[in-house]
Amino acid sequence: METDVLIVGGSAAGLMAGITARKHYPEKKVTIVRKEDKVLIPCGIPYTLHTVDGPENNIIPDEAATGKDIELIINEVVEIDKENKNVKLKNGELIKYEKLVLGIGSSPFLPPIKGANLENVYTVKKDFELLKEMRNKVKENKEIVIIGGGFIGVEFADEIRKNDDTNVTIIEILDNVLSLVCDDILCEKAENKLRENGVNVLTESKVIEIVGDQKAEKVKLESGKEISADVVIIATGVNPNTELASEAGLDSNSKKGILVDEYMRTSDPDIFACGDCVEKPSYFGENFQAAWLASIATNEGRVVGANLYNLRRKKQKSIGIFSTIVDDLALGVAGLTKKQAENAGIEVVEGHAEAINRHPGSMPGAQLLGVSLIFQKYDGIIIGAQVYGADTAGEFLNILGLAIEKQMTAEDLATLQVGTHPALTASPVPYQLINAAEDAVIKLNS
Amino acid sequence: METDVLIVGGSAAGLMAGITARKHYPEKKVTIVRKEDKVLIPCGIPYTLHTVDGPENNIIPDEAATGKDIELIINEVVEIDKENKNVKLKNGELIKYEKLVLGIGSSPFLPPIKGANLENVYTVKKDFELLKEMRNKVKENKEIVIIGGGFIGVEFADEIRKNDDTNVTIIEILDNVLSLVCDDILCEKAENKLRENGVNVLTESKVIEIVGDQKAEKVKLESGKEISADVVIIATGVNPNTELASEAGLDSNSKKGILVDEYMRTSDPDIFACGDCVEKPSYFGENFQAAWLASIATNEGRVVGANLYNLRRKKQKSIGIFSTIVDDLALGVAGLTKKQAENAGIEVVEGHAEAINRHPGSMPGAQLLGVSLIFQKYDGIIIGAQVYGADTAGEFLNILGLAIEKQMTAEDLATLQVGTHPALTASPVPYQLINAAEDAVIKLNS
Repeated sequence: METDVLIVGGSAAGLMAGITARKHYPEKKVTIVRKEDKVLIPCGIPYTLHTVDGPENNIIPDEAATGKDIELIINEVVEIDKENKNVKLKNGELIKYEKLVLGIGSSPFLPPIKGANLENVYTVKKDFELLKEMRNKVKENKEIVIIGGGFIGVEFADEIRKNDDTNVTIIEILDNVLSLVCDDILCEKAENKLRENGVNVLTESKVIEIVGDQKAEKVKLESGKEISADVVIIATGVNPNTELASEAGLDSNSKKGILVDEYMRTSDPDIFACGDCVEKPSYFGENFQAAWLASIATNEGRVVGANLYNLRRKKQKSIGIFSTIVDDLALGVAGLTKKQAENAGIEVVEGHAEAINRHPGSMPGAQLLGVSLIFQKYDGIIIGAQVYGADTAGEFLNILGLAIEKQMTAEDLATLQVGTHPALTASPVPYQLINAAEDAVIKLNS
Repeated sequence: METDVLIVGGSAAGLMAGITARKHYPEKKVTIVRKEDKVLIPCGIPYTLHTVDGPENNIIPDEAATGKDIELIINEVVEIDKENKNVKLKNGELIKYEKLVLGIGSSPFLPPIKGANLENVYTVKKDFELLKEMRNKVKENKEIVIIGGGFIGVEFADEIRKNDDTNVTIIEILDNVLSLVCDDILCEKAENKLRENGVNVLTESKVIEIVGDQKAEKVKLESGKEISADVVIIATGVNPNTELASEAGLDSNSKKGILVDEYMRTSDPDIFACGDCVEKPSYFGENFQAAWLASIATNEGRVVGANLYNLRRKKQKSIGIFSTIVDDLALGVAGLTKKQAENAGIEVVEGHAEAINRHPGSMPGAQLLGVSLIFQKYDGIIIGAQVYGADTAGEFLNILGLAIEKQMTAEDLATLQVGTHPALTASPVPYQLINAAEDAVIKLNS
């Protein structure tokens, strides 16, 4: 078999690379090989547990590729022969390529917890059948324990608590849930919302063992405390999948990912890589870690797809823009938190503002939206933003992501031109982004 | 009487100038003189007719000023003596100032239509009692005719049609409603939505007379057609209020507004002006006209308030970012339309994309959101954007306004970093802004 562009992996990064290649190089044959029969929408995984009623309603349709004249092969690539420019499938078949793209993702990181191999203990894999099984177990059982209070852990907890007759416990080793990615104001709001909805939130708690005979029965903490557990979900981060690349002799780092140049080429110039499997530089420099997100994976897919036969797009240094929702409280972060900046030695000034996202406040859909902005003290440039409240927070955060990318100052943002409307946004007088910036301007002046 | 900062006008611009002055110059005495007993939230005026149930629910609370230690005087300034730095009130009293700010707004432009002085014919004034009267008339009567299909006319039509037993007709002289500010795609969507909801939309129709004895009875078109009219609302734009300024010898233009320098000082350096009463330059140069919006007025208020004793903020050239909603269809524009650009002689490329603003599409709150982006053909820089569909359109447009301000190219936007979330935004794969930009990239390349 033979193709022009061969993409390994059909999730966010691979699919996006394929769609982009198709647009930029309409004369080329584009083929995606993926091992999953059904591909889950990665960010939608938590919502399969309740809101969208099962993983079958959270599938990237094959049509997203095949409808754009991309050939789709369900099979596993087990070897890359970069000298002869072909890959070997599990069944021994070879596919020849001109350009190869690796979008081979990441796998859950499993901390060394005794009993993690018991029945009814799950990690969060992008695996349709496993997710279905986990969902059934969660529905059938009462005591659900989630280990890890990051975004994924929090989203699972908030979904599962919506099921009837369920006790959900979330166990976080740090002082707050979301503590690595949010400042205290957001962490506390998220925690309060979870608790209001009956979730048992345990912080500064280290799991030392999952106890059980064959099945999980309880989770034991370092403090000696034990928590009943019919089902345990471990959500403690991911590691990049690099084996296929490293076995082929491509430069990679098993913790950080496959190494790529500024055009997202691996150490072989005809092999590109994108998504969770690739090393991610932070916009803020070497002292900071970039998050792994589907939005970054697709961004990289767009870079790779356009660059295949013409190097035109540079790899982005990741700002890190992400949001979530707990019950009716949307939360989001762009760039650095105050904690991250201060821990790295950057003196910052924070500006804050809250307002109703309608005007007058009696307009339908009125909700509070709050904003915290983090500026470098020495030059007033914005390096971080946090948003909470109304569900416009998602797009609101994208204004802030762009402001960070463009290195705008508090002064710039205090006179930012925005559009407002009674039914869609806050009034221009208390408009959150601008007033938070003005708050910082005053602090920076004083 | 004596104050440090005296502000004439208590609507968006004046209030914002006052709040900003208070933050930047806490040691100064700040006084607002306004003639209205109650100040309407300007953008909320249409919504008093139905949604928020009356003008009394659409008031800027005095507390917005007095709660920030700004003195509030309800009176009318009738004369400015710039030599002696004082103003005269209607009752003859003088107020001495160090710095004077004019935020004296605009008045409805009344086209020369015969019968415009009949009873039950209204213009859209920021006048509480008049609005209350108009609301009552609209509620009591059946046949309501709106002359002018701009944003205000459309908002009035969409509100009034929500009342029981009401026939609403909107009469627009151009080929479409919103035609001066939107491209055809948005105009048609707005028109269709109005018609679906029973509004009688007449385009390419010129009103020549409002016919009636004492009260309005019908509206006569140039075509000879007559439309029954119990109440007529004229919404055909505004003119700046400049009289007070020009009588005081300050430079002004009765059509364009009071003239100010780059720091928003009038021809007297101790007198500043902001809001609808001030001339507005367009971001896009002299060939284009800037809109008059409350969001621009507040922006100018923030510039003036900060500059009073220390010139630190430059007047913004207006990009023009505004949005509205017709029934459940949000619409918005930032920058130039395709029509405006082409009429001025700029060759453009348009990129377009639509997607559901959730992922998977079965997530609650899923609505379509579509985006059209206008780029200069010769350099690929974005000069305009139009958004329609979901009510996240309001904040979405503010991302685009910033992209225009920062002169980003289609290529920049095709790899823009954004945050996405199943419950808050589109998936990163079909994310509208990026895909519309990619659409333009492909067209620019070919």
